[in-house]
Amino acid sequence: MASLLLKNGRVVTAGSDSVCDVLVEGETIVAIGRNLPVQADQTIDCSGKIMVPGGVDPHVHLDMPFMGTFSSDTHETGTRAALHGGTTTVIDFVLQKQGHSLREALTEWQGRATGTAVGDYSFHMAVTDFNPGTKEEIKEMIAEGITSFKTFMAYKGALMIDDAQMVGLMQEVKKHGGLVTAHATNGDMIDTLIAQHRAAGKLTPLYHYLSQPEVTEAEASGRFADIANYTGVNAYIVHLTCEGALNQVRRATERNQRVFVETCIQYLVLDASLYEDEVNGAKVVMSPPLRQKKDQATLWAGINQGLVQVVGTDHCPFMWEQKLMGKDDFSKIPNGHPAIEHRMELLFSEGVATGKISLQKFVEVTSTNAAKIFGMFPRKGTISIGADADLVLFDPTARHTISADTHHMNCDYSAYEGWELTGKIETVILRGQVAVHGGETKVGRGYGQFIKRGTTAF
Amino acid sequence: MASLLLKNGRVVTAGSDSVCDVLVEGETIVAIGRNLPVQADQTIDCSGKIMVPGGVDPHVHLDMPFMGTFSSDTHETGTRAALHGGTTTVIDFVLQKQGHSLREALTEWQGRATGTAVGDYSFHMAVTDFNPGTKEEIKEMIAEGITSFKTFMAYKGALMIDDAQMVGLMQEVKKHGGLVTAHATNGDMIDTLIAQHRAAGKLTPLYHYLSQPEVTEAEASGRFADIANYTGVNAYIVHLTCEGALNQVRRATERNQRVFVETCIQYLVLDASLYEDEVNGAKVVMSPPLRQKKDQATLWAGINQGLVQVVGTDHCPFMWEQKLMGKDDFSKIPNGHPAIEHRMELLFSEGVATGKISLQKFVEVTSTNAAKIFGMFPRKGTISIGADADLVLFDPTARHTISADTHHMNCDYSAYEGWELTGKIETVILRGQVAVHGGETKVGRGYGQFIKRGTTAF
Amino acid sequence: MASLLLKNGRVVTAGSDSVCDVLVEGETIVAIGRNLPVQADQTIDCSGKIMVPGGVDPHVHLDMPFMGTFSSDTHETGTRAALHGGTTTVIDFVLQKQGHSLREALTEWQGRATGTAVGDYSFHMAVTDFNPGTKEEIKEMIAEGITSFKTFMAYKGALMIDDAQMVGLMQEVKKHGGLVTAHATNGDMIDTLIAQHRAAGKLTPLYHYLSQPEVTEAEASGRFADIANYTGVNAYIVHLTCEGALNQVRRATERNQRVFVETCIQYLVLDASLYEDEVNGAKVVMSPPLRQKKDQATLWAGINQGLVQVVGTDHCPFMWEQKLMGKDDFSKIPNGHPAIEHRMELLFSEGVATGKISLQKFVEVTSTNAAKIFGMFPRKGTISIGADADLVLFDPTARHTISADTHHMNCDYSAYEGWELTGKIETVILRGQVAVHGGETKVGRGYGQFIKRGTTAF
Amino acid sequence: MASLLLKNGRVVTAGSDSVCDVLVEGETIVAIGRNLPVQADQTIDCSGKIMVPGGVDPHVHLDMPFMGTFSSDTHETGTRAALHGGTTTVIDFVLQKQGHSLREALTEWQGRATGTAVGDYSFHMAVTDFNPGTKEEIKEMIAEGITSFKTFMAYKGALMIDDAQMVGLMQEVKKHGGLVTAHATNGDMIDTLIAQHRAAGKLTPLYHYLSQPEVTEAEASGRFADIANYTGVNAYIVHLTCEGALNQVRRATERNQRVFVETCIQYLVLDASLYEDEVNGAKVVMSPPLRQKKDQATLWAGINQGLVQVVGTDHCPFMWEQKLMGKDDFSKIPNGHPAIEHRMELLFSEGVATGKISLQKFVEVTSTNAAKIFGMFPRKGTISIGADADLVLFDPTARHTISADTHHMNCDYSAYEGWELTGKIETVILRGQVAVHGGETKVGRGYGQFIKRGTTAF
Repeated sequence: MASLLLKNGRVVTAGSDSVCDVLVEGETIVAIGRNLPVQADQTIDCSGKIMVPGGVDPHVHLDMPFMGTFSSDTHETGTRAALHGGTTTVIDFVLQKQGHSLREALTEWQGRATGTAVGDYSFHMAVTDFNPGTKEEIKEMIAEGITSFKTFMAYKGALMIDDAQMVGLMQEVKKHGGLVTAHATNGDMIDTLIAQHRAAGKLTPLYHYLSQPEVTEAEASGRFADIANYTGVNAYIVHLTCEGALNQVRRATERNQRVFVETCIQYLVLDASLYEDEVNGAKVVMSPPLRQKKDQATLWAGINQGLVQVVGTDHCPFMWEQKLMGKDDFSKIPNGHPAIEHRMELLFSEGVATGKISLQKFVEVTSTNAAKIFGMFPRKGTISIGADADLVLFDPTARHTISADTHHMNCDYSAYEGWELTGKIETVILRGQVAVHGGETKVGRGYGQFIKRGTTAF
Repeated sequence: MASLLLKNGRVVTAGSDSVCDVLVEGETIVAIGRNLPVQADQTIDCSGKIMVPGGVDPHVHLDMPFMGTFSSDTHETGTRAALHGGTTTVIDFVLQKQGHSLREALTEWQGRATGTAVGDYSFHMAVTDFNPGTKEEIKEMIAEGITSFKTFMAYKGALMIDDAQMVGLMQEVKKHGGLVTAHATNGDMIDTLIAQHRAAGKLTPLYHYLSQPEVTEAEASGRFADIANYTGVNAYIVHLTCEGALNQVRRATERNQRVFVETCIQYLVLDASLYEDEVNGAKVVMSPPLRQKKDQATLWAGINQGLVQVVGTDHCPFMWEQKLMGKDDFSKIPNGHPAIEHRMELLFSEGVATGKISLQKFVEVTSTNAAKIFGMFPRKGTISIGADADLVLFDPTARHTISADTHHMNCDYSAYEGWELTGKIETVILRGQVAVHGGETKVGRGYGQFIKRGTTAF
Repeated sequence: MASLLLKNGRVVTAGSDSVCDVLVEGETIVAIGRNLPVQADQTIDCSGKIMVPGGVDPHVHLDMPFMGTFSSDTHETGTRAALHGGTTTVIDFVLQKQGHSLREALTEWQGRATGTAVGDYSFHMAVTDFNPGTKEEIKEMIAEGITSFKTFMAYKGALMIDDAQMVGLMQEVKKHGGLVTAHATNGDMIDTLIAQHRAAGKLTPLYHYLSQPEVTEAEASGRFADIANYTGVNAYIVHLTCEGALNQVRRATERNQRVFVETCIQYLVLDASLYEDEVNGAKVVMSPPLRQKKDQATLWAGINQGLVQVVGTDHCPFMWEQKLMGKDDFSKIPNGHPAIEHRMELLFSEGVATGKISLQKFVEVTSTNAAKIFGMFPRKGTISIGADADLVLFDPTARHTISADTHHMNCDYSAYEGWELTGKIETVILRGQVAVHGGETKVGRGYGQFIKRGTTAF
Repeated sequence: MASLLLKNGRVVTAGSDSVCDVLVEGETIVAIGRNLPVQADQTIDCSGKIMVPGGVDPHVHLDMPFMGTFSSDTHETGTRAALHGGTTTVIDFVLQKQGHSLREALTEWQGRATGTAVGDYSFHMAVTDFNPGTKEEIKEMIAEGITSFKTFMAYKGALMIDDAQMVGLMQEVKKHGGLVTAHATNGDMIDTLIAQHRAAGKLTPLYHYLSQPEVTEAEASGRFADIANYTGVNAYIVHLTCEGALNQVRRATERNQRVFVETCIQYLVLDASLYEDEVNGAKVVMSPPLRQKKDQATLWAGINQGLVQVVGTDHCPFMWEQKLMGKDDFSKIPNGHPAIEHRMELLFSEGVATGKISLQKFVEVTSTNAAKIFGMFPRKGTISIGADADLVLFDPTARHTISADTHHMNCDYSAYEGWELTGKIETVILRGQVAVHGGETKVGRGYGQFIKRGTTAF
């Protein structure tokens, strides 16, 4: 087995902070120590660098079928870009087609990901049609390491399940120890507001935002927590964006409930003022939409309160040409933006470098917590003996600039174009292989593996 | 430097979980790895054992002057007993005398602890009289590594400060980056109820409990959080016991505030029904008193919600003879009970073995979080390179029974007499030295060192 | 015009309490005074009696089509029984049939009520299918004096509207100054639980209760308040039963919202223990079901807090034979119980006579508030000049016993059989006519008039 | 007995709204009717006018000793001005001197009020020193019709009681059925902030405001509610000004508690921007200070939610010369402003005429609720048979302008100078006598009577 020695980095995990060496054999970390008295096949000097666990982004949409086309990053390009941004593992969403089985969808997604992903990946199963048949498949999915089940409380007729299905799904998932996650917005309200805006000729990106007011998310978040509390299932809200929604989770704590919360990097650093640009507003059309400054403050606080455990991306890129499908009607703009590559550097720059969060929190919300919640810990989300050698080396003081010209995502614009960041990722290691170094990808198509997951242990 | 090799334990920290070896040189962990290829002066086989960081108990009262006598554990006996229970570091409270300086109190406490403590220790400074003089001393205390300032919202005339002093203290502590902690109960209300019960001849231990109803703690917790929010200081509530109080903290999250919360082991496992015993009730007379089953449920939930970060003890033992001072009047029963030795085993048995909390949470609340909050991380609270080699080896399946006959605290009774626990601590290492093994103390009086602390990084 | 003089009663309204005479000419109160120096066609000595405004019960279901049959009280028998219980005005629900117009339903209900009602009545319009057609009818209905629009958040496929329709309806109703009311329970959750209980062979009345846990009502109440707040419409929750639901309303006050709340008499005085009787449990099968003692306490408190403004009945009686349709399956038990006759006496006995509420509150919640909220004030809900002479004379100390043998509702059982009450209604006057006296009905079929209502003024 | 006939007014109470005549004999209303067939000694044509019950202002400070001087309105000038503004009854605060008995204070206040007051008055007893002696006096005070006991949670050393005294007082008052009211601000916090601002040379009126931030009121309001809930006493918060404080009351509803709330007219219509005027800011220096626009919105909502029952004034005028005592130091500005005369017209103009509140709410918050809460109902606070003939005639459309030149308060400035109002009081009747008409006072010094009060019936 090839060995790799990382010398003298500042190694930071959720529970440690040491200047030391890390020795990797094959894919695994085998020793951590001060001046380890070993020779390795390859040695990297990490002096002055911060080493954190490879990022886990539990919210990405790769090669996702959409309106006759697909989100523009494949499992190959998406995981490659993720690696450039320090994210070594992603969890992609398999979307059941209503009327079809979970298995069919899984097979389809496996077909696109297997042998193509550059970085490691796993799948959530989005249950869009809970019925006696899919009920039977839950246990089977968990056995295959797909232990988290996504629900959509919006997108009626396509992805949305109603509360009847929600109860049933939660009961079944709980029986097998799994986790239910939710896109928690009130689809019926949103559909109405979209229709009203369209009928009134209000078609610019601003109306995408105004069709999903805070209440649509707060309401659904509360409802999801209520049903989860009744069924007793482990529950997780994806891409939570606003004060109203987090307050529902906070209030749920008063009945001794724990609801896991994920926000996404864009909700921490961008805000709804961007929708006022009638053209470029389309670049940040996503659901839920960007919110207000007060919501950013809420989310940063939520991280430090321990109530927001995860920062993901909801990466779902579309080329500008695809975005232009909605140039005359916000409701036709494909939802999503490219972010998989910038999550960790943005959070480092805006969170750690500004003093908003500690390095330990940074690690927790970028990898450890997701690994624990989604059953990949301690294989992922840590730098420890026996763990996968997924490692990210930051130069904490280097400054660099984001641009679509230089990013690795298959997307011809960036919502962060020209942002200058503090802290730059120099080297990324995935299962013992240098995957990215000096801006170059060092591992190829198909290097990424499917990660079979266990159940939540947090 | 002597070396110590711990082989093949299951090493658990807040952010890792690995079967591996740990190598110690001198006082420090220098390597962690699988089959470390080293020879050490001493080797311990840890197969089948769980290794966690040495416990940090941030709430103990050793050799505390009280009513002409002292709490019955000295820094020697108390820290020795702590070691037997896996707690390698304690934070003791220095109590300023009203009208006197902080320095005087510190000198007095140093006089008792220096050269006597067996385990490591630090000090909180209890500010009982905030005035222009003590204001000047805050910065100085922080410089000496005493970065947390305790306030009492009860015990008027002895320890209590009013809200005017609270504002002033918080502002000054914030200026220097410190932390303010509170015994958050409404002393005025309690004093009134005590007086009323005494006047009515209601003198049994039950009236100790009834003199401190939940509202007295909920109210003060809310008030403390309010003032802390106004001043912006880092705030921490000690020995929080009940739903009403935790709900104040939960509601404070809605204004984006973070208030750290410590509960104590007894509030998780004992309840107020014990006060019905007119004689033995005295054994658990402490302030705040034990609460109800619903409060236990709240506290366990609080731990998993991330809103209760620390489990301490408020260790403050008195011999039965001392307790008898109050046999005819609950208000004369010295407050406190012996717990320093049982915190970790009780929490393991009642929390981990029952599945209420994960091993990672166990580590977080017994050491890591306290170390982070109180500025001792990453020296304490972790098993990582460069950290003090403070290590606890649990036999996770061994069963044993608590008894005053066998415990090491200087107290002739146990509130947990006859409790049979799952999980037994076999070996405890403090700064590289085997401190406890096979039930015997291996380090002597004076081995314990004062730990100079930094400010909160959580 | 005939005149009627009521001498020396203790006349109590929401805003007064006087011993005096009340003079009626024709249908209207024309004078109130001490020793009014007048001769009248008829004089009643009211000494020792309490006179309150005729009751307004805003929640009754008369002659309601159901499973091929009808609720057992017609507009004739129902309003007659109401009169015996002091309720001179009821508001019945017109139920739109999905796929049909509001007008059709109104015509059908008018067909049953016109010329048959003995007491006064008005209609709410239950909108079960909000679409461009019904949207057009809202304004028209308001013009006809039907200013309140009921929604069902349960009974999918029959009565339930989704949140999309809710938004649209609220916006339209707001435009015209009307009020939206809701049966606020989560129909999807309930349907699932019913199906699960049935599938598991859990068929007794207890499972009716267990199919509608508190969360199903709390959730929907919160959701209704959320959407109402977003649209700005006047909102009213019918038959609120529990702490969880009222807490949603209480929390909504924090955003400066006012949501009107109606509870029903049964939720104040009966509890869910009745469902344990496998036979008689059917007598109190209604939706929402009876709740716990703690919920009763919440509702009484809510009345005194001013947050529960109305006590209605949800009167919806079925003969025992009809109830037996569900003897082998709780889901087939017609929902509802007979209560229209006992609301005021029960509330007087359990509320006023026990000291739980004041006489003024009694008047507010039995008539004045409903009259204000539903646009009938000051014609109804008061004893004042120009108001309809709808008057109820209570003997406050008389005791009597409820029985199906003696009640006037067309129902062969009573949920209150054998209850002995303090305070008895002796005389009831409707628009100047003695309608009930000494247990006899003095007005006939068709005496009752449709009351055209205005909008809310509270 | 002289008789007075008021013809054809629109008579509005909390529970009625009629165009009718009101007949008064002596001091009492004896008949209300349409075209009453009577001759009276005096007849007033009220066509086009709105008649409401005489106002009850439960919060005034007349002839109050302060810093060697007195508030500038005596019981004579103050109650006369009140009458001009439609307020026929005021409740003044007797202030116990610490170390002295309640009786002494009452005697002193009676000495100033008896024979001088022009309008009716009663007294609250401010208990500033609760001890075994004053405990004995509580029952006695209630027997004399002084049933409400004011507490100050601020002004340490002069008026403030601590929480120990609060518990004792509440328990004693509850025993006798009385009511405890509170000036609920955290005096200790405020004293600290005042001292800090002064030490920093921040001496303008703005620092009065900044010394009493919202938290000081929110905290104390919550604490007062907590203690009241524990003791079970009827509780009432005086001059509540802000969202934070009302939210404490709202949250208290969740534990089924009812806390009565009074705001004052100035908090509804003025805001803290006035403090930016370094000179004129002094005119509105009062405690609590004026707040923000968002707090005004909260208070208006609170009225409509039924959670704010009373609008008073905290009338406490000082001449400009007296205000100038603090021209160089905000802490020396006598607290208070003249308002007793403008409460009803301001509330009518800003509340009723703008559509913010209904006429019924107007009556409730200006008289009925205070009468009920403070045990004067149904003698005061209503227009009904047997009630005192305290009547106010509004011309609802007349516009007029407030000015110190024309007001009747003994104060040489007005905080509302130049405000143009809609709705003008034309005639005020107190106990059957025209007290004010056409701007002239028609009753003399000593006409006002002491009103002996009962306990709360709401």
